[in-house]
Amino acid sequence: MSASSPDDSNSRRALASYVGRRITPSNNSNAEENEVLDFEYFGLTPRGPPNLEDFLEVWSVDVHQNPDDINKKQHHTELYDCRNLIVRRGQPFQITITFNRAYNSGKDKFWVEFLIGRYPDITKQTYVPVYIQEQLEKGKWGAMVTSTRANTLSLSVVSPPHCIVGRFRMYFAVMTPYGIRRTARDPDTDIYVIFNPWCREDMVYLDNEAENEEYVLNDAGRIYYGKFTEITSRPWIFGQFERDILDSCIYMLDRARMPLQTRSCPIKVSRVASAMINAKDDAGVLVGCWDGKYANGVAPTAWNSSVEILLQYFQTQLPVCYGQCWVFAAVFNTVLRCLGIPARLVTNFSSAHDNDANLTTDIILDENGKKDMNLTKDSIWNYHCWNECWMSRYDLPPGYDGWQVVDATPQETSEGMFRCGPASVNAIKHGQVYLPYDAPFIYAEVNSDVVYWNRQKDGSLIKGDVKTDEVGMLILTQEIGSNDRKDITDQYKYPEGSQADRAAQDTAIQYGVKKEEAVAETAVDATLNVHVPEKVLLGTNFDVGIELKNNSSEKQHMTVHLNGCVVFYTGVPKIQIKDKTIKASVEPHQVYQAQVKIKSKDYEDHLVEQSILHFLVSGHVAETGQTLAVQKTVILQIPKLNLKAEGPAVYGREMIIVIEFTNPLKKPLEEVILRIDGLDTQKPKLKIFSSIPESATFTTKEWFVPWRRGIRKVIASLDCKALKQVVGELELNVI
Amino acid sequence: MSASSPDDSNSRRALASYVGRRITPSNNSNAEENEVLDFEYFGLTPRGPPNLEDFLEVWSVDVHQNPDDINKKQHHTELYDCRNLIVRRGQPFQITITFNRAYNSGKDKFWVEFLIGRYPDITKQTYVPVYIQEQLEKGKWGAMVTSTRANTLSLSVVSPPHCIVGRFRMYFAVMTPYGIRRTARDPDTDIYVIFNPWCREDMVYLDNEAENEEYVLNDAGRIYYGKFTEITSRPWIFGQFERDILDSCIYMLDRARMPLQTRSCPIKVSRVASAMINAKDDAGVLVGCWDGKYANGVAPTAWNSSVEILLQYFQTQLPVCYGQCWVFAAVFNTVLRCLGIPARLVTNFSSAHDNDANLTTDIILDENGKKDMNLTKDSIWNYHCWNECWMSRYDLPPGYDGWQVVDATPQETSEGMFRCGPASVNAIKHGQVYLPYDAPFIYAEVNSDVVYWNRQKDGSLIKGDVKTDEVGMLILTQEIGSNDRKDITDQYKYPEGSQADRAAQDTAIQYGVKKEEAVAETAVDATLNVHVPEKVLLGTNFDVGIELKNNSSEKQHMTVHLNGCVVFYTGVPKIQIKDKTIKASVEPHQVYQAQVKIKSKDYEDHLVEQSILHFLVSGHVAETGQTLAVQKTVILQIPKLNLKAEGPAVYGREMIIVIEFTNPLKKPLEEVILRIDGLDTQKPKLKIFSSIPESATFTTKEWFVPWRRGIRKVIASLDCKALKQVVGELELNVI
Repeated sequence: MSASSPDDSNSRRALASYVGRRITPSNNSNAEENEVLDFEYFGLTPRGPPNLEDFLEVWSVDVHQNPDDINKKQHHTELYDCRNLIVRRGQPFQITITFNRAYNSGKDKFWVEFLIGRYPDITKQTYVPVYIQEQLEKGKWGAMVTSTRANTLSLSVVSPPHCIVGRFRMYFAVMTPYGIRRTARDPDTDIYVIFNPWCREDMVYLDNEAENEEYVLNDAGRIYYGKFTEITSRPWIFGQFERDILDSCIYMLDRARMPLQTRSCPIKVSRVASAMINAKDDAGVLVGCWDGKYANGVAPTAWNSSVEILLQYFQTQLPVCYGQCWVFAAVFNTVLRCLGIPARLVTNFSSAHDNDANLTTDIILDENGKKDMNLTKDSIWNYHCWNECWMSRYDLPPGYDGWQVVDATPQETSEGMFRCGPASVNAIKHGQVYLPYDAPFIYAEVNSDVVYWNRQKDGSLIKGDVKTDEVGMLILTQEIGSNDRKDITDQYKYPEGSQADRAAQDTAIQYGVKKEEAVAETAVDATLNVHVPEKVLLGTNFDVGIELKNNSSEKQHMTVHLNGCVVFYTGVPKIQIKDKTIKASVEPHQVYQAQVKIKSKDYEDHLVEQSILHFLVSGHVAETGQTLAVQKTVILQIPKLNLKAEGPAVYGREMIIVIEFTNPLKKPLEEVILRIDGLDTQKPKLKIFSSIPESATFTTKEWFVPWRRGIRKVIASLDCKALKQVVGELELNVI
Repeated sequence: MSASSPDDSNSRRALASYVGRRITPSNNSNAEENEVLDFEYFGLTPRGPPNLEDFLEVWSVDVHQNPDDINKKQHHTELYDCRNLIVRRGQPFQITITFNRAYNSGKDKFWVEFLIGRYPDITKQTYVPVYIQEQLEKGKWGAMVTSTRANTLSLSVVSPPHCIVGRFRMYFAVMTPYGIRRTARDPDTDIYVIFNPWCREDMVYLDNEAENEEYVLNDAGRIYYGKFTEITSRPWIFGQFERDILDSCIYMLDRARMPLQTRSCPIKVSRVASAMINAKDDAGVLVGCWDGKYANGVAPTAWNSSVEILLQYFQTQLPVCYGQCWVFAAVFNTVLRCLGIPARLVTNFSSAHDNDANLTTDIILDENGKKDMNLTKDSIWNYHCWNECWMSRYDLPPGYDGWQVVDATPQETSEGMFRCGPASVNAIKHGQVYLPYDAPFIYAEVNSDVVYWNRQKDGSLIKGDVKTDEVGMLILTQEIGSNDRKDITDQYKYPEGSQADRAAQDTAIQYGVKKEEAVAETAVDATLNVHVPEKVLLGTNFDVGIELKNNSSEKQHMTVHLNGCVVFYTGVPKIQIKDKTIKASVEPHQVYQAQVKIKSKDYEDHLVEQSILHFLVSGHVAETGQTLAVQKTVILQIPKLNLKAEGPAVYGREMIIVIEFTNPLKKPLEEVILRIDGLDTQKPKLKIFSSIPESATFTTKEWFVPWRRGIRKVIASLDCKALKQVVGELELNVI
């Protein structure tokens, strides 16, 4: 499984230099196995082959792995497209054994053995002999006879609620006077053990059936993005139950060389996974790229599903190109849900980033009040996506169980944060940033201030406005059982300016989070308001409205500069598209208004994936020296793909999906890739159009056969150089 | 500087895909610079070149960087072999400027600028204009005039106590009506700013002159190793003041791409350094190797000095082969002291390792009471070296300032701990393992129990003895101002079995450290004692004494097995050299004694670097089933190299060192490398002997010229396949 990757040969070399360091190499892969002896002699070898006829012999084993059999239903694993039995830990499952003759409990001694990885070891719980007991004991591996009938015996087997998660091999061992006789290796009886949110003793226990339905069992969802006043969303197929996805998740942990004995702890598993979802350092799943070009890979905006990404990683054993924050978070969500850890995808609007626990984002204005594009080096992400996973935290003082932030997007901080979390959401709310892991960074993402600096002629900076309410403005996730969004800002922050908010901030600062103090408020003699339209369609012109108000009883001479840029969703400007200065002399208590026209041709050729325009209007009042600054963002609305079904959606019967799209631009779209997910369990359907003429509409049809009953989603995305993030979806009720 | 390394071209490629992620690349290298404008026009360009004759012009600058000038003495940096000025932060230093004419404070406006790295930025403190003030302000950059005389002006300049540590470029800027006129780049006036343990406001402040003399200014020391009952030590040259060592340390942080603005914090600097000292993941300084072969590199036991290692890394930009724990710790000590962070090297005797916060080390005995070599997979390191560094911890609740553990040896845990710490020693003592960073691992290293398991016929394990006092038995560092050792065990642990010890352990367990409960004590009807000689010379025979005592009033049949191995210092067995079974029937209240002879030829051909033999005597009493187990370690004494000086040690005058050695083995030593450090500031002297006959003595002479006054050390080591860790030293008082 791991032979072909160049990285692994390095690791083998590395291992060789560890000869004197460890007695055996670390047991860190589900794919590597040890031989188990068919017959383990006790030393006293009999003359000739031993006569074993008298002893129990296992003829066949049934682990009841079919989805409609008893085990998978009881374990909420019937949706997994997997031939093997998948059980959740801490919960009994049934197996039936057929012997060569009837089992005699007084005379026969046999037991079940579960092994995982290479060099399995009883003291590490990677080799577990399970003996037949009268009663199952809580918290331990155990097996009891539930019924016997002629030569068959039914067993109820249970794993502990802190069991290692992964693929166990199962053997049956029978004691004879000469030694231990074992069944041969049979991959069909391999059993996957995963986390169990339905088990009270499991660290991931979630005592709410509706939440488990959503956070563990829902295999599709929505991702929110855009800006906080204009939230967009796109659908996503998490697909945690699709074929080979569980194996992909386990492969990912194997690739991280995470020792198997530590895979019982969701804190450690989620932390290692947060490192492995991104490819930095460890040849993980997804390569991050923000260059707007995405050469030799799929643009982050083009993906609709985690399935293709995880399968490609699993099959090629190479990182997949390319991801940005929502793709990292979506794939992470798949991995967590697949392994049985309740998880959700969260979007933080206006997210401070890469800032090393510094609560300040600095914007520098030159001596004329214009934004200094050379000196301003910080940016605020329009949004940032991460995940929350649900677990108890034995490693922290009481009060921090529940949702934990994990973030798989690689950050460029001093720690090179290519893993992040789990950090308790409650710890972040209370500013308890010293609690592991990585809480200061997440705290700063939702709590930073924006500081405007005025640069003087001699190069020195004088602090101007400090805006405390421009970061972490809204934190959203998806509502349970619906496509609506759920505002969870209050789980991360107390209301802005409340006493509890100040207390939390004081706590965070006490533990090293850095902050600039606000300057004493000066009298507000002048106000600046900026208006942008609520909705702007891509390809249309619009106005930015500027309103200067003189609140004093003296005449004021005001100068403001409008700086307009096409920006990446990270807030990084790509190109300046507008630079305009407005001078006005405003009479006492009067308002001066101006409109700045932004034309389609100003921005059309420069857009990057999320079609975001950013405006900073800044300036000053000559008489008082007061600084004025307002930032606004416009997200251009992209037309959606229109998906329709022709005919009813019936399980196993062919049907048609019609996809329609109109080019909104006044230029042709070249080399357009249409990607449709949800028609097949494994691969998206791709269609390529060499050109779509200006303002033209195209229609295309896809035949497919629904392979699962119930509510299913078909998701399409369109990607080309001039236009990205074009998506459409269709919900089908397959009968 | 960084152009030639293959790793960096990767990083450039990686950076390119970050175009839309950051406005400018991260400022993370002292070696990369920006051009600064010689003349920064204010826009209003005059007709023709501006007439600048009226304005101040800087003719020359003297930063008083000579070791016997005022600055370095006051800053305790006179020992650094460095042409540039090195100052400690938060403390004023003097510079003298000569202008074209006398300075007129009323008319002339000039200031000093300090820049570090590329893309320097005022808000990040990587670009600092320092204006002339009346008085220096505490906690801020500042400059004040101390005297003027004709055209010269003396300035006292101060950096803040939280200043970035690194190499700053200095410019002088003069304001003219047309723009700002700057001096040209002059590398001679570059100033290194380092941490300041003498400054009360610095996080590394250490209020004890003797401690600062040792932990910051002592450039040599001792490393303790061996076993806790028989401690050996070797001398080491830290050499933090040698030429280019400070640059090597800064290069190492640059190579880690640590953003410059975060290099003000010793917590972050020490954490990043702990990752960079080992080469895992990040092309750091030293490659770990425990294979006993050390192909194409220097054996870890052969090094005597950090200087060669750091310089080789700096010059080749490639990791250096090879290190083991004490080498990692010794190089780390150099780096910390060089940067001005008080640091010491610590040895923990009987150190549990790689155990993922598990307080158990498991030893498995088969049903006959013999150690099962196949099933026992844990080992305890005979010793493990790490570092402590002194700093206040604003990021933790109060009470955890002071010594902090940092460990640069790569660990193979679930987290892939290729960085470790800083973790407060006080937090470890109290079991507060949730406090960052990595405290659970260090806690387990000093507190694990050894659990003996008895394997039954059916493969199940029954817990036997639990020994709580076999790990973390002794923690040592070097005494201040002497070559003696200092026992600091009580800083890590309360006395074994005390109430405070139990409370600390309960706390640690509450926060997730795992522990096996001891089984109820059975009556001790029999006791086993094992004696090994206190000192065994390599090449000699010796006896292991076994004493079986029957404490009961019944006759007992006892069986014990002696298992003797050559082991690595990590406790990993290399080869079994003895396996003997002793059966005895012992009358009530009687003692049975036996001696097992270990011959030189049993072990001679198998020794690895530290010449450690390990004995496990285990067995049981037939009548009671009681388990008996005792472990003993023998460290074979290696003869030392004998160093003598011929003639007096006089600064600048040639002298002779005589080195003498006798081969203790009854076989010739082949390809012997003699390595002598301390004769030259930069490189060790190497001598190679193709063969040293059996029992032969050789003498060799080295000429050299002492280049520093005071107490200096010359250290030699001898390395060959059959014999390692042969060291000798000579202390010279150079007059």
